[in-house]
Amino acid sequence: MYIVGERINGMFADVNKAIREKDAACIQDLAKRQLAAGAWALDVNVGPAASDAQGAMLWLVETIREVTDAPLAIDTAKWEVMSAVVPQVPGEKILNSSKADPELATKYVGLAQENGASLIGLTIDADGVPGNVEKRVELGVQFITVAMEGGLPMDRLFIDPIILPVNVAPKNPENCMDAISQIRAFADPPPHLLLGLSNVSQRCSNRGLINRTYLAMAMARGLDAAIMDPLDTALVDTAVTAELLLEKMIYCDSYLEAARRS
Amino acid sequence: MYIVGERINGMFADVNKAIREKDAACIQDLAKRQLAAGAWALDVNVGPAASDAQGAMLWLVETIREVTDAPLAIDTAKWEVMSAVVPQVPGEKILNSSKADPELATKYVGLAQENGASLIGLTIDADGVPGNVEKRVELGVQFITVAMEGGLPMDRLFIDPIILPVNVAPKNPENCMDAISQIRAFADPPPHLLLGLSNVSQRCSNRGLINRTYLAMAMARGLDAAIMDPLDTALVDTAVTAELLLEKMIYCDSYLEAARRS
Repeated sequence: MYIVGERINGMFADVNKAIREKDAACIQDLAKRQLAAGAWALDVNVGPAASDAQGAMLWLVETIREVTDAPLAIDTAKWEVMSAVVPQVPGEKILNSSKADPELATKYVGLAQENGASLIGLTIDADGVPGNVEKRVELGVQFITVAMEGGLPMDRLFIDPIILPVNVAPKNPENCMDAISQIRAFADPPPHLLLGLSNVSQRCSNRGLINRTYLAMAMARGLDAAIMDPLDTALVDTAVTAELLLEKMIYCDSYLEAARRS
Repeated sequence: MYIVGERINGMFADVNKAIREKDAACIQDLAKRQLAAGAWALDVNVGPAASDAQGAMLWLVETIREVTDAPLAIDTAKWEVMSAVVPQVPGEKILNSSKADPELATKYVGLAQENGASLIGLTIDADGVPGNVEKRVELGVQFITVAMEGGLPMDRLFIDPIILPVNVAPKNPENCMDAISQIRAFADPPPHLLLGLSNVSQRCSNRGLINRTYLAMAMARGLDAAIMDPLDTALVDTAVTAELLLEKMIYCDSYLEAARRS
Protein backbone atom coordinates (compact mmCIF):
# COMPACT_ATOMS: atom_id res chain seq x y z
CA MET A 1 0.00 0.00 0.00
CA TYR A 2 1.43 3.30 -1.09
CA ILE A 3 0.48 5.53 1.86
CA VAL A 4 0.71 9.27 1.25
CA GLY A 5 0.63 11.06 4.61
CA GLU A 6 -2.05 13.76 4.61
CA ARG A 7 -1.08 15.71 7.71
CA ILE A 8 1.11 18.49 6.25
CA ASN A 9 -1.86 20.50 5.05
CA GLY A 10 -2.72 24.07 5.93
CA MET A 11 -6.30 22.95 6.54
CA PHE A 12 -5.05 21.69 9.91
CA ALA A 13 -4.69 24.41 12.52
CA ASP A 14 -1.21 23.32 13.68
CA VAL A 15 0.17 23.36 10.13
CA ASN A 16 -1.52 26.64 9.32
CA LYS A 17 0.14 28.20 12.37
CA ALA A 18 3.50 26.63 11.54
CA ILE A 19 3.40 28.08 8.02
CA ARG A 20 2.56 31.57 9.28
CA GLU A 21 5.25 31.45 11.98
CA LYS A 22 7.84 29.58 9.91
CA ASP A 23 7.99 26.91 12.60
CA ALA A 24 10.23 24.36 10.87
CA ALA A 25 10.37 22.01 13.86
CA CYS A 26 6.59 21.45 13.81
CA ILE A 27 6.62 20.55 10.09
CA GLN A 28 9.71 18.36 10.38
CA ASP A 29 8.22 16.53 13.34
CA LEU A 30 5.03 15.83 11.36
CA ALA A 31 7.14 14.58 8.44
CA LYS A 32 9.22 12.23 10.58
CA ARG A 33 6.28 10.91 12.57
CA GLN A 34 4.23 10.14 9.47
CA LEU A 35 7.11 8.27 7.85
CA ALA A 36 7.83 6.29 11.02
CA ALA A 37 4.14 5.36 11.22
CA GLY A 38 4.10 3.83 7.74
CA ALA A 39 3.84 6.62 5.15
CA TRP A 40 5.81 6.13 1.92
CA ALA A 41 5.30 9.70 0.72
CA LEU A 42 4.11 13.01 2.16
CA ASP A 43 1.42 15.27 0.84
CA VAL A 44 2.33 18.97 1.02
CA ASN A 45 -0.53 21.48 0.90
CA VAL A 46 -0.31 25.10 2.06
CA GLY A 47 -4.06 25.28 2.66
CA PRO A 48 -6.59 27.76 1.33
CA ALA A 49 -5.53 30.67 3.56
CA ALA A 50 -1.91 31.07 2.48
CA SER A 51 -1.41 34.55 0.98
CA ASP A 52 1.78 33.57 -0.89
CA ALA A 53 0.97 30.01 -1.93
CA GLN A 54 4.13 29.54 -3.97
CA GLY A 55 6.45 30.91 -1.29
CA ALA A 56 4.73 28.88 1.42
CA MET A 57 4.97 25.69 -0.66
CA LEU A 58 8.67 26.22 -1.37
CA TRP A 59 9.32 26.82 2.33
CA LEU A 60 7.47 23.62 3.25
CA VAL A 61 9.40 21.62 0.65
CA GLU A 62 12.79 22.97 1.81
CA THR A 63 11.88 22.40 5.44
CA ILE A 64 10.80 18.78 4.86
CA ARG A 65 13.80 18.03 2.61
CA GLU A 66 16.10 18.85 5.53
CA VAL A 67 14.87 15.68 7.27
CA THR A 68 13.81 13.21 4.55
CA ASP A 69 14.24 12.14 0.93
CA ALA A 70 10.73 10.61 0.83
CA PRO A 71 8.60 11.46 -2.22
CA LEU A 72 6.62 14.69 -1.79
CA ALA A 73 3.15 15.13 -3.27
CA ILE A 74 2.91 18.79 -4.27
CA ASP A 75 -0.75 19.42 -3.58
CA THR A 76 -2.19 22.48 -5.30
CA ALA A 77 -5.04 23.11 -7.71
CA LYS A 78 -3.18 26.07 -9.24
CA TRP A 79 -1.17 25.41 -12.40
CA GLU A 80 1.00 28.49 -11.86
CA VAL A 81 2.03 27.28 -8.39
CA MET A 82 2.58 23.69 -9.55
CA SER A 83 4.61 24.64 -12.62
CA ALA A 84 6.77 27.08 -10.64
CA VAL A 85 7.39 24.82 -7.64
CA VAL A 86 7.88 21.36 -9.14
CA PRO A 87 11.21 22.11 -10.92
CA GLN A 88 12.57 23.32 -7.58
CA VAL A 89 11.67 20.18 -5.60
CA PRO A 90 14.76 17.97 -5.11
CA GLY A 91 14.26 14.21 -5.18
CA GLU A 92 11.11 12.23 -5.86
CA LYS A 93 7.87 14.15 -6.29
CA ILE A 94 4.26 13.66 -7.25
CA LEU A 95 2.04 16.26 -8.90
CA ASN A 96 -1.21 16.37 -6.92
CA SER A 97 -3.24 16.82 -9.06
CA SER A 98 -4.65 17.35 -12.54
CA LYS A 99 -8.23 17.19 -13.74
CA ALA A 100 -9.01 14.98 -16.71
CA ASP A 101 -9.78 17.51 -19.44
CA PRO A 102 -7.41 16.36 -22.21
CA GLU A 103 -5.71 19.71 -22.85
CA LEU A 104 -5.06 20.26 -19.13
CA ALA A 105 -4.04 16.64 -18.52
CA THR A 106 -1.56 16.85 -21.39
CA LYS A 107 0.07 19.90 -19.77
CA TYR A 108 0.38 18.11 -16.43
CA VAL A 109 1.72 14.91 -17.99
CA GLY A 110 4.33 17.06 -19.75
CA LEU A 111 5.32 18.80 -16.50
CA ALA A 112 5.59 15.42 -14.73
CA GLN A 113 7.70 14.01 -17.57
CA GLU A 114 10.08 16.99 -17.70
CA ASN A 115 10.70 16.71 -13.98
CA GLY A 116 10.82 12.92 -13.55
CA ALA A 117 7.71 13.18 -11.37
CA SER A 118 4.61 11.07 -10.84
CA LEU A 119 1.11 12.44 -11.40
CA ILE A 120 -2.23 12.08 -9.67
CA GLY A 121 -5.07 12.35 -12.18
CA LEU A 122 -8.58 13.03 -10.92
CA THR A 123 -11.64 11.59 -12.68
CA ILE A 124 -13.21 15.02 -12.77
CA ASP A 125 -13.53 17.42 -15.68
CA ALA A 126 -15.21 20.71 -16.48
CA ASP A 127 -18.58 19.04 -15.72
CA GLY A 128 -17.52 18.23 -12.13
CA VAL A 129 -17.41 14.96 -10.21
CA PRO A 130 -19.19 12.19 -12.18
CA GLY A 131 -22.39 10.86 -10.61
CA ASN A 132 -21.90 7.37 -12.03
CA VAL A 133 -19.31 4.67 -12.58
CA GLU A 134 -19.21 4.89 -16.37
CA LYS A 135 -18.09 8.54 -16.51
CA ARG A 136 -15.41 7.89 -13.86
CA VAL A 137 -14.07 5.01 -15.91
CA GLU A 138 -14.19 7.08 -19.10
CA LEU A 139 -12.16 9.89 -17.50
CA GLY A 140 -9.73 7.42 -15.92
CA VAL A 141 -9.13 5.74 -19.25
CA GLN A 142 -8.74 9.16 -20.88
CA PHE A 143 -5.96 9.86 -18.38
CA ILE A 144 -4.26 6.57 -19.15
CA THR A 145 -4.34 7.45 -22.84
CA VAL A 146 -2.89 10.93 -22.31
CA ALA A 147 -0.17 9.50 -20.05
CA MET A 148 0.76 6.85 -22.61
CA GLU A 149 0.90 9.42 -25.39
CA GLY A 150 3.10 11.61 -23.20
CA GLY A 151 5.42 8.72 -22.37
CA LEU A 152 4.57 8.67 -18.65
CA PRO A 153 4.89 5.05 -17.46
CA MET A 154 1.91 3.56 -15.65
CA ASP A 155 3.82 3.19 -12.38
CA ARG A 156 4.08 6.98 -12.26
CA LEU A 157 0.36 7.57 -12.85
CA PHE A 158 -2.12 7.53 -9.97
CA ILE A 159 -5.82 7.66 -10.91
CA ASP A 160 -8.08 9.11 -8.20
CA PRO A 161 -11.80 8.34 -8.75
CA ILE A 162 -12.84 11.00 -6.17
CA ILE A 163 -14.53 9.67 -3.07
CA LEU A 164 -17.34 11.80 -1.62
CA PRO A 165 -18.72 11.67 1.94
CA VAL A 166 -21.07 8.73 2.54
CA ASN A 167 -23.52 10.94 4.42
CA VAL A 168 -24.16 13.20 1.42
CA ALA A 169 -23.49 10.81 -1.50
CA PRO A 170 -24.50 7.33 -0.29
CA LYS A 171 -23.95 5.60 -3.63
CA ASN A 172 -20.53 7.16 -4.12
CA PRO A 173 -18.37 4.73 -2.09
CA GLU A 174 -19.61 1.76 -4.12
CA ASN A 175 -19.28 3.69 -7.39
CA CYS A 176 -15.65 4.40 -6.58
CA MET A 177 -14.94 0.74 -5.85
CA ASP A 178 -16.52 -0.28 -9.14
CA ALA A 179 -14.52 2.39 -10.98
CA ILE A 180 -11.28 1.25 -9.32
CA SER A 181 -11.65 -2.34 -10.45
CA GLN A 182 -12.72 -1.33 -13.97
CA ILE A 183 -9.99 1.28 -14.53
CA ARG A 184 -7.34 -1.21 -13.34
CA ALA A 185 -8.40 -3.57 -16.10
CA PHE A 186 -7.68 -1.06 -18.86
CA ALA A 187 -3.88 -1.18 -18.81
CA ASP A 188 -1.28 -3.88 -18.17
CA PRO A 189 0.58 -3.01 -16.05
CA PRO A 190 -2.20 -0.89 -14.57
CA PRO A 191 -1.76 2.61 -13.17
CA HIS A 192 -1.96 3.05 -9.42
CA LEU A 193 -5.45 3.61 -8.05
CA LEU A 194 -5.56 6.18 -5.24
CA LEU A 195 -8.15 7.83 -3.01
CA GLY A 196 -8.22 10.81 -0.68
CA LEU A 197 -9.56 8.45 1.95
CA SER A 198 -10.62 10.79 4.76
CA ASN A 199 -13.19 12.42 2.52
CA VAL A 200 -15.48 9.37 2.75
CA SER A 201 -16.26 10.21 6.38
CA GLN A 202 -16.39 14.04 6.34
CA ARG A 203 -18.81 15.28 9.03
CA CYS A 204 -19.70 11.70 10.01
CA SER A 205 -19.53 10.14 13.46
CA ASN A 206 -17.22 7.11 13.78
CA ARG A 207 -14.78 8.60 11.26
CA GLY A 208 -11.94 6.20 12.04
CA LEU A 209 -14.19 3.17 11.70
CA ILE A 210 -15.64 4.36 8.38
CA ASN A 211 -12.19 5.23 7.01
CA ARG A 212 -10.58 1.90 7.83
CA THR A 213 -13.58 -0.19 6.78
CA TYR A 214 -13.70 1.57 3.43
CA LEU A 215 -9.95 1.25 2.99
CA ALA A 216 -10.14 -2.54 3.37
CA MET A 217 -13.09 -2.73 0.99
CA ALA A 218 -11.45 -0.56 -1.68
CA MET A 219 -8.19 -2.54 -1.40
CA ALA A 220 -10.20 -5.71 -2.07
CA ARG A 221 -11.30 -4.04 -5.31
CA GLY A 222 -7.83 -2.91 -6.42
CA LEU A 223 -6.95 0.29 -4.56
CA ASP A 224 -3.18 0.32 -4.00
CA ALA A 225 -2.55 3.89 -2.80
CA ALA A 226 -4.23 6.40 -0.52
CA ILE A 227 -3.74 9.88 0.83
CA MET A 228 -4.58 9.23 4.47
CA ASP A 229 -3.54 9.80 8.07
CA PRO A 230 -0.68 7.42 8.93
CA LEU A 231 -0.83 8.63 12.55
CA ASP A 232 -4.13 6.73 12.85
CA THR A 233 -2.61 3.43 14.03
CA ALA A 234 -5.79 1.40 13.56
CA LEU A 235 -5.97 2.63 9.97
CA VAL A 236 -2.41 1.61 9.12
CA ASP A 237 -2.97 -1.74 10.87
CA THR A 238 -5.94 -2.27 8.56
CA ALA A 239 -3.88 -1.39 5.47
CA VAL A 240 -1.12 -3.81 6.47
CA THR A 241 -3.59 -6.59 7.29
CA ALA A 242 -5.41 -6.12 3.99
CA GLU A 243 -2.07 -6.49 2.20
CA LEU A 244 -1.46 -9.70 4.15
CA LEU A 245 -4.87 -10.99 3.02
CA LEU A 246 -4.04 -10.05 -0.59
CA GLU A 247 -0.82 -12.04 -0.30
CA LYS A 248 1.39 -8.95 -0.72
CA MET A 249 3.31 -10.17 2.33
CA ILE A 250 3.70 -13.46 4.17
CA TYR A 251 2.26 -13.98 7.64
CA CYS A 252 4.44 -13.92 10.72
CA ASP A 253 3.23 -13.22 14.24
CA SER A 254 4.84 -9.76 14.15
CA TYR A 255 3.61 -8.87 10.66
CA LEU A 256 2.30 -5.45 11.78
CA GLU A 257 5.71 -4.41 13.07
CA ALA A 258 7.56 -6.06 10.18
CA ALA A 259 5.57 -4.04 7.63
CA ARG A 260 6.46 -0.77 9.33
CA ARG A 261 10.13 -1.62 9.47
CA SER A 262 10.36 -2.39 5.76
CA MET B 1 -25.35 -8.90 6.51
CA TYR B 2 -26.79 -12.20 7.56
CA ILE B 3 -24.81 -12.88 10.75
CA VAL B 4 -24.93 -16.46 12.05
CA GLY B 5 -23.68 -16.50 15.65
CA GLU B 6 -20.91 -19.08 16.07
CA ARG B 7 -20.74 -19.30 19.86
CA ILE B 8 -23.04 -22.26 20.59
CA ASN B 9 -20.42 -24.82 19.61
CA GLY B 10 -19.07 -27.65 21.74
CA MET B 11 -15.57 -26.64 20.62
CA PHE B 12 -15.83 -23.86 23.21
CA ALA B 13 -15.15 -25.03 26.77
CA ASP B 14 -18.18 -23.27 28.29
CA VAL B 15 -20.59 -24.83 25.79
CA ASN B 16 -18.96 -28.24 26.11
CA LYS B 17 -19.48 -28.08 29.87
CA ALA B 18 -23.05 -26.83 29.50
CA ILE B 19 -23.93 -29.73 27.19
CA ARG B 20 -22.48 -32.29 29.61
CA GLU B 21 -24.20 -30.74 32.62
CA LYS B 22 -27.45 -29.84 30.83
CA ASP B 23 -26.95 -26.21 31.87
CA ALA B 24 -29.81 -24.60 29.96
CA ALA B 25 -29.21 -21.13 31.41
CA CYS B 26 -25.70 -20.96 29.93
CA ILE B 27 -26.93 -21.87 26.44
CA GLN B 28 -29.94 -19.56 26.62
CA ASP B 29 -27.76 -16.69 27.78
CA LEU B 30 -25.40 -17.24 24.83
CA ALA B 31 -28.40 -17.33 22.47
CA LYS B 32 -29.89 -14.10 23.79
CA ARG B 33 -26.61 -12.23 23.95
CA GLN B 34 -25.66 -13.14 20.37
CA LEU B 35 -29.04 -12.01 19.05
CA ALA B 36 -28.90 -8.76 21.01
CA ALA B 37 -25.41 -8.12 19.60
CA GLY B 38 -26.58 -8.38 16.00
CA ALA B 39 -26.90 -12.07 15.03
CA TRP B 40 -29.78 -12.96 12.72
CA ALA B 41 -29.41 -16.72 13.21
CA LEU B 42 -27.58 -19.07 15.58
CA ASP B 43 -25.25 -21.90 14.71
CA VAL B 44 -25.76 -25.02 16.84
CA ASN B 45 -22.89 -27.50 17.02
CA VAL B 46 -22.45 -30.13 19.71
CA GLY B 47 -18.70 -30.31 19.15
CA PRO B 48 -16.52 -33.31 18.40
CA ALA B 49 -16.62 -34.77 21.93
CA ALA B 50 -20.36 -35.35 22.34
CA SER B 51 -21.03 -39.07 22.84
CA ASP B 52 -24.71 -38.82 21.81
CA ALA B 53 -24.54 -36.22 19.06
CA GLN B 54 -28.19 -36.52 18.12
CA GLY B 55 -29.45 -36.29 21.69
CA ALA B 56 -27.16 -33.38 22.47
CA MET B 57 -28.26 -31.52 19.34
CA LEU B 58 -31.95 -31.99 20.15
CA TRP B 59 -31.38 -30.79 23.71
CA LEU B 60 -29.60 -27.68 22.42
CA VAL B 61 -32.40 -26.96 19.93
CA GLU B 62 -35.15 -27.36 22.56
CA THR B 63 -33.21 -25.25 25.04
CA ILE B 64 -32.63 -22.42 22.54
CA ARG B 65 -36.23 -22.55 21.27
CA GLU B 66 -37.46 -21.75 24.78
CA VAL B 67 -36.00 -18.24 24.39
CA THR B 68 -36.02 -17.38 20.65
CA ASP B 69 -37.62 -18.10 17.28
CA ALA B 70 -34.45 -17.07 15.42
CA PRO B 71 -33.29 -19.38 12.60
CA LEU B 72 -31.04 -22.19 13.85
CA ALA B 73 -28.17 -23.53 11.74
CA ILE B 74 -27.96 -27.25 12.52
CA ASP B 75 -24.22 -27.77 12.26
CA THR B 76 -23.15 -31.38 11.81
CA ALA B 77 -21.14 -33.26 9.21
CA LYS B 78 -23.15 -36.45 9.86
CA TRP B 79 -26.08 -37.15 7.56
CA GLU B 80 -27.75 -39.46 10.11
CA VAL B 81 -27.73 -36.71 12.74
CA MET B 82 -28.88 -34.04 10.27
CA SER B 83 -31.70 -36.13 8.80
CA ALA B 84 -32.95 -37.20 12.24
CA VAL B 85 -32.77 -33.77 13.88
CA VAL B 86 -33.97 -31.38 11.20
CA PRO B 87 -37.62 -32.60 11.08
CA GLN B 88 -37.80 -32.03 14.84
CA VAL B 89 -36.58 -28.41 14.77
CA PRO B 90 -39.51 -26.00 15.11
CA GLY B 91 -39.39 -22.74 13.15
CA GLU B 92 -36.74 -21.56 10.71
CA LYS B 93 -33.65 -23.68 10.22
CA ILE B 94 -30.56 -23.98 8.09
CA LEU B 95 -28.76 -27.22 7.24
CA ASN B 96 -25.05 -26.64 7.93
CA SER B 97 -23.75 -28.19 5.74
CA SER B 98 -23.44 -30.37 2.65
CA LYS B 99 -20.44 -31.07 0.47
CA ALA B 100 -20.78 -30.54 -3.26
CA ASP B 101 -20.69 -34.11 -4.61
CA PRO B 102 -23.89 -34.17 -6.72
CA GLU B 103 -25.44 -37.29 -5.16
CA LEU B 104 -24.88 -36.02 -1.63
CA ALA B 105 -25.93 -32.45 -2.47
CA THR B 106 -29.16 -33.78 -4.00
CA LYS B 107 -29.98 -35.60 -0.74
CA TYR B 108 -29.36 -32.45 1.31
CA VAL B 109 -31.36 -30.25 -1.05
CA GLY B 110 -34.22 -32.75 -0.72
CA LEU B 111 -34.02 -32.72 3.08
CA ALA B 112 -33.99 -28.91 3.08
CA GLN B 113 -36.98 -28.77 0.73
CA GLU B 114 -39.06 -31.30 2.74
CA ASN B 115 -38.50 -29.28 5.88
CA GLY B 116 -38.78 -25.73 4.53
CA ALA B 117 -35.14 -25.21 5.51
CA SER B 118 -32.21 -23.33 4.02
CA LEU B 119 -28.95 -25.07 3.11
CA ILE B 120 -25.28 -24.20 3.36
CA GLY B 121 -23.34 -25.82 0.51
CA LEU B 122 -19.56 -26.12 0.79
CA THR B 123 -17.31 -25.88 -2.28
CA ILE B 124 -15.58 -29.07 -1.27
CA ASP B 125 -16.00 -32.55 -2.68
CA ALA B 126 -14.39 -35.97 -2.36
CA ASP B 127 -11.09 -34.40 -3.53
CA GLY B 128 -11.06 -31.95 -0.59
CA VAL B 129 -10.83 -28.16 -0.46
CA PRO B 130 -9.94 -26.76 -3.91
CA GLY B 131 -6.55 -25.12 -4.24
CA ASN B 132 -7.72 -22.65 -6.85
CA VAL B 133 -10.54 -20.32 -7.75
CA GLU B 134 -11.78 -22.26 -10.78
CA LYS B 135 -12.61 -25.44 -8.86
CA ARG B 136 -14.39 -23.45 -6.14
CA VAL B 137 -16.51 -21.74 -8.76
CA GLU B 138 -17.22 -25.05 -10.49
CA LEU B 139 -18.42 -26.65 -7.25
CA GLY B 140 -20.44 -23.55 -6.32
CA VAL B 141 -22.17 -23.56 -9.68
CA GLN B 142 -22.77 -27.31 -9.34
CA PHE B 143 -24.59 -26.55 -6.08
CA ILE B 144 -26.70 -23.86 -7.72
CA THR B 145 -27.69 -26.35 -10.41
CA VAL B 146 -28.63 -29.07 -7.90
CA ALA B 147 -30.64 -26.56 -5.85
CA MET B 148 -32.50 -25.31 -8.91
CA GLU B 149 -33.30 -28.86 -10.01
CA GLY B 150 -34.54 -29.61 -6.49
CA GLY B 151 -36.71 -26.49 -6.42
CA LEU B 152 -34.76 -24.81 -3.61
CA PRO B 153 -34.98 -21.05 -4.19
CA MET B 154 -31.71 -19.12 -4.30
CA ASP B 155 -32.55 -17.12 -1.16
CA ARG B 156 -32.45 -20.40 0.78
CA LEU B 157 -29.05 -21.47 -0.58
CA PHE B 158 -25.81 -20.31 1.03
CA ILE B 159 -22.59 -21.14 -0.83
CA ASP B 160 -19.50 -21.36 1.41
CA PRO B 161 -16.21 -21.21 -0.56
CA ILE B 162 -14.21 -22.44 2.49
CA ILE B 163 -11.76 -19.97 3.94
CA LEU B 164 -8.48 -21.40 5.26
CA PRO B 165 -6.08 -19.76 7.73
CA VAL B 166 -3.90 -17.06 6.15
CA ASN B 167 -0.82 -18.33 7.98
CA VAL B 168 -0.96 -21.77 6.32
CA ALA B 169 -2.69 -20.94 3.01
CA PRO B 170 -1.62 -17.40 2.09
CA LYS B 171 -3.32 -17.36 -1.32
CA ASN B 172 -6.59 -18.70 0.04
CA PRO B 173 -8.20 -15.46 1.28
CA GLU B 174 -7.88 -13.86 -2.15
CA ASN B 175 -9.05 -17.05 -3.88
CA CYS B 176 -12.19 -17.03 -1.76
CA MET B 177 -12.92 -13.40 -2.62
CA ASP B 178 -12.51 -14.13 -6.32
CA ALA B 179 -14.77 -17.19 -6.00
CA ILE B 180 -17.43 -15.17 -4.15
CA SER B 181 -17.69 -12.54 -6.86
CA GLN B 182 -17.69 -15.14 -9.65
CA ILE B 183 -20.25 -17.50 -8.07
CA ARG B 184 -22.59 -14.55 -7.42
CA ALA B 185 -22.62 -13.81 -11.13
CA PHE B 186 -23.96 -17.25 -12.05
CA ALA B 187 -27.57 -16.83 -10.88
CA ASP B 188 -30.05 -13.95 -10.80
CA PRO B 189 -31.09 -13.61 -8.07
CA PRO B 190 -27.82 -15.00 -6.71
CA PRO B 191 -27.53 -17.42 -3.80
CA HIS B 192 -26.15 -16.08 -0.54
CA LEU B 193 -22.37 -16.23 -0.20
CA LEU B 194 -21.21 -17.20 3.28
CA LEU B 195 -17.92 -17.83 5.11
CA GLY B 196 -16.94 -19.39 8.40
CA LEU B 197 -15.03 -16.21 9.09
CA SER B 198 -12.96 -17.04 12.18
CA ASN B 199 -11.10 -19.72 10.26
CA VAL B 200 -9.09 -17.10 8.34
CA SER B 201 -7.16 -16.23 11.52
CA GLN B 202 -6.75 -19.63 13.21
CA ARG B 203 -3.55 -19.68 15.27
CA CYS B 204 -2.66 -16.12 14.16
CA SER B 205 -1.88 -13.15 16.35
CA ASN B 206 -4.22 -10.13 15.93
CA ARG B 207 -7.20 -12.43 15.28
CA GLY B 208 -9.84 -9.74 15.71
CA LEU B 209 -8.04 -7.39 13.31
CA ILE B 210 -7.59 -10.09 10.67
CA ASN B 211 -11.22 -11.22 10.99
CA ARG B 212 -12.76 -7.77 10.63
CA THR B 213 -10.39 -6.64 7.87
CA TYR B 214 -11.19 -9.75 5.85
CA LEU B 215 -14.91 -9.38 6.50
CA ALA B 216 -14.90 -5.86 5.02
CA MET B 217 -12.85 -7.03 2.04
CA ALA B 218 -15.06 -10.05 1.32
CA MET B 219 -18.21 -7.92 1.65
CA ALA B 220 -16.76 -5.59 -1.00
CA ARG B 221 -16.58 -8.65 -3.26
CA GLY B 222 -20.13 -9.89 -2.60
CA LEU B 223 -20.14 -11.78 0.70
CA ASP B 224 -23.55 -11.27 2.35
CA ALA B 225 -23.50 -13.82 5.19
CA ALA B 226 -20.99 -15.11 7.73
CA ILE B 227 -20.77 -17.53 10.61
CA MET B 228 -18.91 -15.34 13.08
CA ASP B 229 -18.75 -14.09 16.65
CA PRO B 230 -21.38 -11.38 17.15
CA LEU B 231 -20.04 -10.77 20.68
CA ASP B 232 -16.96 -9.21 19.02
CA THR B 233 -18.29 -5.64 18.95
CA ALA B 234 -15.58 -4.31 16.64
CA LEU B 235 -16.41 -7.08 14.16
CA VAL B 236 -20.14 -6.29 14.08
CA ASP B 237 -19.33 -2.56 13.83
CA THR B 238 -17.26 -3.38 10.74
CA ALA B 239 -20.09 -5.43 9.21
CA VAL B 240 -22.59 -2.62 9.78
CA THR B 241 -20.20 0.02 8.42
CA ALA B 242 -19.46 -2.06 5.33
CA GLU B 243 -23.22 -2.29 4.69
CA LEU B 244 -23.43 1.49 5.02
CA LEU B 245 -20.66 1.85 2.44
CA LEU B 246 -22.47 -0.59 0.13
CA GLU B 247 -25.60 1.56 0.45
CA LYS B 248 -27.58 -1.19 2.21
CA MET B 249 -28.54 1.45 4.76
CA ILE B 250 -28.61 5.24 4.89
CA TYR B 251 -26.23 7.17 7.10
CA CYS B 252 -27.34 8.71 10.36
CA ASP B 253 -25.05 9.63 13.25
CA SER B 254 -26.34 6.67 15.25
CA TYR B 255 -26.17 4.15 12.38
CA LEU B 256 -24.33 1.55 14.49
CA GLU B 257 -27.08 1.49 17.08
CA ALA B 258 -29.86 1.76 14.50
CA ALA B 259 -28.60 -1.34 12.69
CA ARG B 260 -28.68 -3.39 15.88
CA ARG B 261 -32.20 -2.27 16.73
CA SER B 262 -33.62 -3.28 13.35
